[in-house]
Amino acid sequence: MRIDDGTKRVVIEDVRPEIEGGRFPIKRIPGERVIVEAAAFSDAHDVVACSLVYRPERALNWSETPMQPLGQDRWRAEFTVDEVGMYRYTVEAWVDFFLTWRRDLEKRAVAGQVAHVDLLIGANLVREASTRAARNEAGYLGEMFTLLSATGDPAARAAAALDPKLLAVMRRFPDKRHAARYDHELAVVVDRPLAVFGAWYEMFPRSCGRTADEHGTLADCAARLPYLAEMGFDVLYLPPITPIGTSYRKGKNNSTECQTGDVGSPWAIGSEAGGHKAVHPQLGTLADFQQLRTRAAELGIELALDVAYQCSPDHPYVREHPEWFRFRPDGTVQYAENPPKKYQDIYPFDFETAHWRQLWDELRSVVLFWIEQGVKIFRVDNPHTKPFGFWQWLIEDVKQRNPEVIFLAEAFTRPRVMQHLAQLGFTQSYTYFAWRNSKSELTEYLRELTQTELAEYFRPNAWPNTPDILTEYLQVGGRPACMARLVLAATLCASYGIYGPAFELCDNRAKEPGSEEYLDSEKYQIRHWNLDDPRSLRHLIARVNHIRRDNPALQTNAGLKFHAVDNDQLICYSKSTPDLSNVILVVVNLDPHHVHSGWVDIPVEELGVGGPRSYQVHDLLSDARFIWQGPRNYVQLDPHVIPAHVFKLRRWLRSEHQFEYFL
Amino acid sequence: MRIDDGTKRVVIEDVRPEIEGGRFPIKRIPGERVIVEAAAFSDAHDVVACSLVYRPERALNWSETPMQPLGQDRWRAEFTVDEVGMYRYTVEAWVDFFLTWRRDLEKRAVAGQVAHVDLLIGANLVREASTRAARNEAGYLGEMFTLLSATGDPAARAAAALDPKLLAVMRRFPDKRHAARYDHELAVVVDRPLAVFGAWYEMFPRSCGRTADEHGTLADCAARLPYLAEMGFDVLYLPPITPIGTSYRKGKNNSTECQTGDVGSPWAIGSEAGGHKAVHPQLGTLADFQQLRTRAAELGIELALDVAYQCSPDHPYVREHPEWFRFRPDGTVQYAENPPKKYQDIYPFDFETAHWRQLWDELRSVVLFWIEQGVKIFRVDNPHTKPFGFWQWLIEDVKQRNPEVIFLAEAFTRPRVMQHLAQLGFTQSYTYFAWRNSKSELTEYLRELTQTELAEYFRPNAWPNTPDILTEYLQVGGRPACMARLVLAATLCASYGIYGPAFELCDNRAKEPGSEEYLDSEKYQIRHWNLDDPRSLRHLIARVNHIRRDNPALQTNAGLKFHAVDNDQLICYSKSTPDLSNVILVVVNLDPHHVHSGWVDIPVEELGVGGPRSYQVHDLLSDARFIWQGPRNYVQLDPHVIPAHVFKLRRWLRSEHQFEYFL
Repeated sequence: MRIDDGTKRVVIEDVRPEIEGGRFPIKRIPGERVIVEAAAFSDAHDVVACSLVYRPERALNWSETPMQPLGQDRWRAEFTVDEVGMYRYTVEAWVDFFLTWRRDLEKRAVAGQVAHVDLLIGANLVREASTRAARNEAGYLGEMFTLLSATGDPAARAAAALDPKLLAVMRRFPDKRHAARYDHELAVVVDRPLAVFGAWYEMFPRSCGRTADEHGTLADCAARLPYLAEMGFDVLYLPPITPIGTSYRKGKNNSTECQTGDVGSPWAIGSEAGGHKAVHPQLGTLADFQQLRTRAAELGIELALDVAYQCSPDHPYVREHPEWFRFRPDGTVQYAENPPKKYQDIYPFDFETAHWRQLWDELRSVVLFWIEQGVKIFRVDNPHTKPFGFWQWLIEDVKQRNPEVIFLAEAFTRPRVMQHLAQLGFTQSYTYFAWRNSKSELTEYLRELTQTELAEYFRPNAWPNTPDILTEYLQVGGRPACMARLVLAATLCASYGIYGPAFELCDNRAKEPGSEEYLDSEKYQIRHWNLDDPRSLRHLIARVNHIRRDNPALQTNAGLKFHAVDNDQLICYSKSTPDLSNVILVVVNLDPHHVHSGWVDIPVEELGVGGPRSYQVHDLLSDARFIWQGPRNYVQLDPHVIPAHVFKLRRWLRSEHQFEYFL
Repeated sequence: MRIDDGTKRVVIEDVRPEIEGGRFPIKRIPGERVIVEAAAFSDAHDVVACSLVYRPERALNWSETPMQPLGQDRWRAEFTVDEVGMYRYTVEAWVDFFLTWRRDLEKRAVAGQVAHVDLLIGANLVREASTRAARNEAGYLGEMFTLLSATGDPAARAAAALDPKLLAVMRRFPDKRHAARYDHELAVVVDRPLAVFGAWYEMFPRSCGRTADEHGTLADCAARLPYLAEMGFDVLYLPPITPIGTSYRKGKNNSTECQTGDVGSPWAIGSEAGGHKAVHPQLGTLADFQQLRTRAAELGIELALDVAYQCSPDHPYVREHPEWFRFRPDGTVQYAENPPKKYQDIYPFDFETAHWRQLWDELRSVVLFWIEQGVKIFRVDNPHTKPFGFWQWLIEDVKQRNPEVIFLAEAFTRPRVMQHLAQLGFTQSYTYFAWRNSKSELTEYLRELTQTELAEYFRPNAWPNTPDILTEYLQVGGRPACMARLVLAATLCASYGIYGPAFELCDNRAKEPGSEEYLDSEKYQIRHWNLDDPRSLRHLIARVNHIRRDNPALQTNAGLKFHAVDNDQLICYSKSTPDLSNVILVVVNLDPHHVHSGWVDIPVEELGVGGPRSYQVHDLLSDARFIWQGPRNYVQLDPHVIPAHVFKLRRWLRSEHQFEYFL
């Protein structure tokens, strides 16, 4: 064992947050805090001091903030990140000679045992500190040195030495010659706010045509934007807009028999018209895309594009770069398979190719191309079927150039794999939310997402439906189920999304019993939607998104707490800002069939409405107001009217001593 | 981010056991297993294979054993260490092309969709494997290649390809070109069995004189050895036998007034007669020490010496190496202090000296000196007051030369510091056992020691008393308390020790109320003990140590389980070997004053005595036998007779069909 400096006596370990031994960053947005804890201790009985050090990666100097002891050798401090990009943090600790001396001097003073030599020891420490101090403090420390090293009553000089001012100055100029530093420099990726808070809408542009027969275009899609803006969405995510292959094209309802006029799956990428950097001719041109993007931006909507790294047999890559594909012994290219199912319209890349570097570079160029086109959000299709190392490299590289880029991982797979994708760099992740329907399922899952280490790096984006996922809950529950799931997604998770217009029009027809595929899925055909259907949820959605924008508590997942209700079909939870200036209390009836009522149990002290006074809960969905008192209150929800309350808590201040108003 | 090989698709993480990110080894003795778990997963849906690889550090080649999948991407395998020294282990994993192909072929076969090209793909994998295989298997694989690549009915060839024999052979010669390896090589320190299982006895040689007036010698100590052997102790630990300083020597009962004839504290090390490598003249010579050691070895007793790195003012180091001490501004050496307490008879080393390397080397030479004298066990005094890095270096270095050496850490301090000392290399550790007296305290603490990660590296040595620790429980409880604590220490912990003869003679007189110091402590004076006192526990101790040697279940802490009793003054637990061939069930009355009875709740299935038949519990302390049936049985213990049962479970086999005997 090689020891470089045997005089470093402090051990630093168990620094948190630290993901997988420091291999991966945690995530934040500007304004968020990073609360750091560490264990730091020394041998013997000397006093240890501990600092959190941090900096934006681009900064030359570290900032430093003292850590506070929590007892049992643990320490805590925090810093706030304020700019997008990468930050670093780590911990320093040292045996503090002055603090040790001062603690002992206090004990000596109490025992009446201060000797001249004790003061001389402190005097020397003060003199040394004066050489490290700035001019002003150096002068003060020089005076203190003179005082401590003079002759005269030791007790009086001890009292002077124990002056809190001396302590404060000495703390600023510690002797760090033997300081230890934690052996990992940990990272924080700071994203823009949309990484945490946003309402997403997925839509197929080709279904935006003016008539049922027409193949919609990007221009038609642009015409649909005001409808989305009215509903209050922040992001419009488009399935691939790239050219669609014709070989083995799938017909309606995923049929292997393709009929004339069938439009094919947008995920079968590439044709004579081009590959991942081209626009499907039936949708329009790059110029049309630019117009769509510009119009969206005017309405406060940002576009998200799909990144699906796979090819149709007609993709130019297949001809130009056969070395990126796997060939079978019969000379054909290996298509995608999940035996016995065959996906002959899709060629996966062979990531084990000897030419992996060129393949990676080309795939990165796809993302960089669309970034040049002004796209800053990518929804990545099935990232768990491409190597993890590839994603880590790609995302790190792209974010070094463009730290504002957001990558959403569309992986529905085993927990560890989903977590690993988030760890290696994906900004956001799809979740199991769609399949968490009961109160216990929702509670357990959301607690895991928001109250464990996952909260440091896994940012959930909750979708009640997607083009692949029409859950049995929605199939069976219809419109009431859609309403309940909308409110749950939008209030449990700061980021959520819906696939529309199927969602707002409550399309709940599955392809077949037991399937989660939509009947007549837009993945394989054009659908024409009646947006003005009176049963549409568009106004409810607008209301919900409006509430989200108005209430900071709903813009983060940090303040989520679940509360008891004596009815398992009713779920109750609150979200609040740290200062309790904004508290939202949500109650949802999870049963789409029956009216349910029950008594909710509110932790009134925690939510700032404790004490004997009444308080008001204001339902932001219905605008109804209720006067509540104490922790136990009654609720009743009819799913056929609206299955949820989204209450804003208002403290009730009225009394005979005050004017009558609500805070 | 630098990627060397993008084709490594498997991620390996969360390998356990792994202490502090792999910085520290786990501990074992020969014959013990290391059960390793890991997470390993790949992108996509390919089949992953995973191996545990391990070797003794001296070996050139790694051994390999396949890990079994536990689900959710976790894997498990184990290996057994069989020699003292250091072992290494880590994990390898790879996407297994053959296993993937075979899984898919099974599905194709079920669906009746096996094509010629599918078989050709497998044939190529088999051919490649044949180039990696040994001659015999290569021949077989060549035949299988011919079969798979031939023409003819694909279904029949698929059946042949699915032959388990082919699977078994292919598993032995996997394609590891893209294999990933976990990025830490983890370590196991393998100690000799005494590191886990041993009964220790601490005794002051100077109190072994034949008369009360006499200063005992090492020769007197040797004469005492048969007494210890009779009691069944494995280790005799001697407080420092080095020369004792005279400056500021402490008098009886730690008085600062030293009277003529006062013998001083053995921990005030060093005088004109020498320092850490000399024998105190009043005890004898190095030759006497050798005779003591030899005689002890003949009786199966090993000596443990004290390592106390501190000096009396008279130690030769003070004169020869003033640079190893801290000087005060008045030119005097800094003595040990805990203000306002002063220990002027003790000079600590200054581990922050610029000459720390020379200091470390000299301190190491002390241990090496005594190793040359045949000592292999060191009880280290207050290791937590010397730098952690020093100990890590010292122990690693010494154990590289002499892997059989055992270091016991005498640190009674905060949990994290005690754990850290064990992590950095101490073989065994003193514990908080002395202060855990109630059922809940004992249960919680022993569970922590034996059923958490601590069990991997922290080996408890339980002492009911030491020269520094006469607990209030012993003071108040007297002889019944001593009996209870003896049985608890000896059966809860595979390693335990007592400080005698104070313990077996039930000396319970404290220096003053509220103090844990013995009155007339042997630390400062000679005591003359009446070993033949009829109230001595020597015969009980002999019995307990005999039981420990006879019953393998008591020789490890792995099989400890606590069982419910409906009386809080009764504690019940069992220890068993993994195969249940030896099951010991202990019940202790924790109240030294009153008879207690209660119903114990035995997990009969777990302990192998389930079913309707009765079983016998044989009290190895009293030789009484009881017939029990089912989980709930009655016990009653009188602390004034003996406060414990140490039952051996014996399966009751008698029935009308069998001869009458106990297994």
